[in-house]
Amino acid sequence: MMRKVSIATVLVLVSSHAIANDDLMMAAKQLFKPIPSAIPAVKDNPVTTEKAELGKMLFFDPRLSASGIISCNTCHNLGTGGVDAGPTSVGHGWQKGARRAPTVYNAVFNVAQFWDGRAPDLKAQAKGPVQASVEMNATPDHVTSTLNSMADYVAKFKQAFPRDTPPVTFDNFAKALEAFEATLTTPAAPFDQYLNGDANALNDQQKAGLRLFMDKGCASCHNAINIGGQDFFPFGVIKKPDIKLLPAADKGRFAVTTAPSDQYVFRVAPLRNVALRAPYFHSGQVWTLKEAVGIMSEVQLGAKLSETENNDIVAFLNSLSGCLPKIEYPILPTRTKETPPPSLSR
Amino acid sequence: MMRKVSIATVLVLVSSHAIANDDLMMAAKQLFKPIPSAIPAVKDNPVTTEKAELGKMLFFDPRLSASGIISCNTCHNLGTGGVDAGPTSVGHGWQKGARRAPTVYNAVFNVAQFWDGRAPDLKAQAKGPVQASVEMNATPDHVTSTLNSMADYVAKFKQAFPRDTPPVTFDNFAKALEAFEATLTTPAAPFDQYLNGDANALNDQQKAGLRLFMDKGCASCHNAINIGGQDFFPFGVIKKPDIKLLPAADKGRFAVTTAPSDQYVFRVAPLRNVALRAPYFHSGQVWTLKEAVGIMSEVQLGAKLSETENNDIVAFLNSLSGCLPKIEYPILPTRTKETPPPSLSR
Repeated sequence: MMRKVSIATVLVLVSSHAIANDDLMMAAKQLFKPIPSAIPAVKDNPVTTEKAELGKMLFFDPRLSASGIISCNTCHNLGTGGVDAGPTSVGHGWQKGARRAPTVYNAVFNVAQFWDGRAPDLKAQAKGPVQASVEMNATPDHVTSTLNSMADYVAKFKQAFPRDTPPVTFDNFAKALEAFEATLTTPAAPFDQYLNGDANALNDQQKAGLRLFMDKGCASCHNAINIGGQDFFPFGVIKKPDIKLLPAADKGRFAVTTAPSDQYVFRVAPLRNVALRAPYFHSGQVWTLKEAVGIMSEVQLGAKLSETENNDIVAFLNSLSGCLPKIEYPILPTRTKETPPPSLSR
Repeated sequence: MMRKVSIATVLVLVSSHAIANDDLMMAAKQLFKPIPSAIPAVKDNPVTTEKAELGKMLFFDPRLSASGIISCNTCHNLGTGGVDAGPTSVGHGWQKGARRAPTVYNAVFNVAQFWDGRAPDLKAQAKGPVQASVEMNATPDHVTSTLNSMADYVAKFKQAFPRDTPPVTFDNFAKALEAFEATLTTPAAPFDQYLNGDANALNDQQKAGLRLFMDKGCASCHNAINIGGQDFFPFGVIKKPDIKLLPAADKGRFAVTTAPSDQYVFRVAPLRNVALRAPYFHSGQVWTLKEAVGIMSEVQLGAKLSETENNDIVAFLNSLSGCLPKIEYPILPTRTKETPPPSLSR
């Protein structure tokens, strides 16, 4: 209930006056923040080079899964916007997951992780998929046994966690992943340049789209540094989305809080690099940004956009694609006879 | 039949005299060649930067598979010696392949590709797994439709194949992959440095192992630049290996030539970076190099190695690990509404 009030309040604040041309940048600066060029700090987990480098290895290491063929990067592919091909992810035993993989890029800026926000941060998130039977299907013991079987990994854990005995723990595995993922920010999108004062960083259509994004009320939920990712709202504030987009069985945040008001509530999708990440929504059934924008305006705002308005908003969303970090593909430690062999069984 | 004669001849040549300490390097230079520091030329397919860069993108792009989650790198993982976790590869629909993935590193130096040598070169090889129903399960049309749906790919094919109209063809897809794979050489292993004249590049145990490798007859088959990969021989020259290692149904090169003498004949395994690539043999059932060396000496040479001999040969094999190329993980073109959606069905 409080959430609905807060939507309404922000809607009023944003929409109550048409934003004048000259004030557009100022209004945008009130609602959004550019991605910093420096790597952000992470709570209770200082991001060191050693930790991030180790985390990169873990991120790409399929041997941490039971089968030996699924790594974090399988579903959060850094070459394709930090997500997989969709619609929803495929994991151990060719099982189909219920939801689309969220992107790891800029995930560090989200208020919580997963579509339902059930993990407060990336170190908590990192422990999920590796253990999920439908994803990597491993156990903490499989992870630490695998890592301890390779002296190069043990040495790198010692470097990354010099005060910890033993250095190789499931907690430190998660912390190293969080440290790497904190480096996966994508600064310098045209919209960041605009927020940093370059009025020419957006073209006229993108500015029109930005204005609409604020005027129509999109920015009520999609705001701050990640243009989303900061709060939780129902999918279908005004109108229930088609059941294909909002399957009845997945009640979203309700599974986390069991609060009736949290039925079909999800974390607001962060829109950074959204143009790289079709298909859209947690169900992954919408393959173009244009269609996604049309659906959102209808079900969240009760507004039917004109063709021009829709195109303008899409043009603005295209300005959210930033510079992806250069990643050197890691050479992983060599397995030993102590390394647990792959297991394909379900 | 000719092959057995040739084994015998080489065995005699290699084993008929114990190799004196001083002559070890000279003898090695007769049988083996160092990996060149330059990228090797490829027949009918000049390796240009544009082609190799494009090939790298294709190598890492899972959207070329029917499911959208399997890339070349899934089974030929560049982070783990160019192979997967084994024993044999897992592909579309969680199907288990019959054989272990061969490494892509230095594959350009092999006389032919696949365990049975059914592809004469890497451009022919590249067309196999992408179409195999048990691997990527795609079609040439899926590949070209996917590539043509993304303007960035079309532009890169134009740059890589400036004279071809249209530039995006299944042949050029394979040629770009071959060009990238030609760059996957691993020079400067201790053994290369030794072959290039640095007597101290191998330690005493490795030199003892090298001597045994030649004296015992291993080098009869495992020779030249890839320490193998140049010819075809039966697995079990002297003694039939255990059925677990040599499953009866897989008759190797016989399926290619239908010559009775080719039953259970395979391409000699190239031993470059072999220490990185457990489990061993086409069946992937042997998890340590030590055990693999013991098996090979028994079934191929009829020799029972002492513990010291076995350890020395393993030490020599460890000197075959070279410098892996640095690979920047490619950012792939963004899918469009024309890109074929993933299909998980079998």
